[in-house]
Amino acid sequence: MKKLLILVFLTLPMIAFAQTKPYLSIADAERITAAAEAKAKAEGWNVVIAILDDGGHLISLKRMDGVQIGSIDVAQAKAKSAVYFKRSTKIFEDVMKGEGGSRIATLPNAVGVEGGLPIFKDGIIVGSIGISGVTSAQDGIIAEAGVKGY
Amino acid sequence: MKKLLILVFLTLPMIAFAQTKPYLSIADAERITAAAEAKAKAEGWNVVIAILDDGGHLISLKRMDGVQIGSIDVAQAKAKSAVYFKRSTKIFEDVMKGEGGSRIATLPNAVGVEGGLPIFKDGIIVGSIGISGVTSAQDGIIAEAGVKGY
Amino acid sequence: MKKLLILVFLTLPMIAFAQTKPYLSIADAERITAAAEAKAKAEGWNVVIAILDDGGHLISLKRMDGVQIGSIDVAQAKAKSAVYFKRSTKIFEDVMKGEGGSRIATLPNAVGVEGGLPIFKDGIIVGSIGISGVTSAQDGIIAEAGVKGY
Amino acid sequence: MKKLLILVFLTLPMIAFAQTKPYLSIADAERITAAAEAKAKAEGWNVVIAILDDGGHLISLKRMDGVQIGSIDVAQAKAKSAVYFKRSTKIFEDVMKGEGGSRIATLPNAVGVEGGLPIFKDGIIVGSIGISGVTSAQDGIIAEAGVKGY
Repeated sequence: MKKLLILVFLTLPMIAFAQTKPYLSIADAERITAAAEAKAKAEGWNVVIAILDDGGHLISLKRMDGVQIGSIDVAQAKAKSAVYFKRSTKIFEDVMKGEGGSRIATLPNAVGVEGGLPIFKDGIIVGSIGISGVTSAQDGIIAEAGVKGY
Repeated sequence: MKKLLILVFLTLPMIAFAQTKPYLSIADAERITAAAEAKAKAEGWNVVIAILDDGGHLISLKRMDGVQIGSIDVAQAKAKSAVYFKRSTKIFEDVMKGEGGSRIATLPNAVGVEGGLPIFKDGIIVGSIGISGVTSAQDGIIAEAGVKGY
Repeated sequence: MKKLLILVFLTLPMIAFAQTKPYLSIADAERITAAAEAKAKAEGWNVVIAILDDGGHLISLKRMDGVQIGSIDVAQAKAKSAVYFKRSTKIFEDVMKGEGGSRIATLPNAVGVEGGLPIFKDGIIVGSIGISGVTSAQDGIIAEAGVKGY
Repeated sequence: MKKLLILVFLTLPMIAFAQTKPYLSIADAERITAAAEAKAKAEGWNVVIAILDDGGHLISLKRMDGVQIGSIDVAQAKAKSAVYFKRSTKIFEDVMKGEGGSRIATLPNAVGVEGGLPIFKDGIIVGSIGISGVTSAQDGIIAEAGVKGY
């Protein structure tokens, strides 16, 4: 019996962890969105908040009142860049501000404006958040607040 | 009395001619979404719920867990068709089921599958709802439940 | 000790299975491709074989010699439709052959020609295969041979 | 002897001027891919390897496990730039790092990030390789290893 249990102990995790990956649920997305929105409201900023899954597909989007409509696509593009390249759009922004940085503009789906952050679980990418509506630095602050809410 | 009349004179035109149109707020969108989601959950259906403004731009989108990713674009396309043509996508579906109905497929932004409904206020279009995830008839039922929540 | 093991037994799977999903590795994709290619060669058919992940992104693509270049996009489009809608493109083909079937053409990313199949693991979608190069029925036969190789 | 010479005279031009061009077969593409992958594995780098024909169309694509999904489009874009302009994307990168280099971003299909190389046979372009997944310099090293495998 003891041996059997040990066998189960040794075998189960192997089966369980074999080739699976974590993912964001709609509940996760709403918690992240709420955290981002709380920060936005506290600062008096109105933004679009987009949450994508690990394939770059929308789980949720929320546009606060009065936000420019251009921000709907911008928020999604930032989030897409973040999950496609597993890095903050701020990193691309910094490269683009340097010498020859315009080359980033020739990479499909890369966005060089702060406000998009990848979301990881146990080191595995599960999705991203994209914010647009205020300045890019402010968008970035809200995105960070969102990720912290995960 | 004279003063009052002058006040009326100054105030009335502002009220009467003020060229405004009603619009959906994010609070409205969330109330509509909640009504649609309540119906979906009651039926055990998982769907994407998209709410657009009168310009056809996303106010909010919510994807319930487990919904096929194709429904993200489909829900938005249905909602876009509904607000672009001020009519239910069911109307286009019925035309497409008739003789020569494929001509509808040549109209930019027209979708011929039930699940997209325009949203009106006092006879003025303010936006639309698009649902995708179950059968088109079921999508239509959820869309109606959403509009009723407005 | 026994109690501890039982606790481990009860707890581990809960942790292990908590919000994770299976996925296709490149090794899986190559095994599926090899099975599809073996069938294609046995029949003397030349095709494009595309394998996508659960987000609709290419894991691998192989174009056999002499295949029309149009099939490169077609194979990917079929595979995309299969994973986006969690169903064979043959199902859309059958609907499109029926009355009013052209309405399917108004759904973003839907392809109504046989040759695209979703790939599931334990009931969860992990990706898809798309074949193009011969007749749609023959494309479908190769796609099935591929899925069986998974 | 005279007859033989006449025969040679008649035959040779046909062979010599027969209007053909060399092209990459799927066997070539797989050999190039294997060489690139061997280098990538030796370095512990995970990348996407795309091989295009002389028309800029995919012959094969392979995404190693764990590579960011953005690299799927980037690898193809680099390879497309390389075959469309018959030059390494490194050449465009160097121009883009110079004064006014952003003008390259206005050229359709030009990519200014290392990792795309044209493939020639007897001075004739037959296709290209595109690599994405690690740094652009590392992508370039893998691309070169691939071309050497041709």
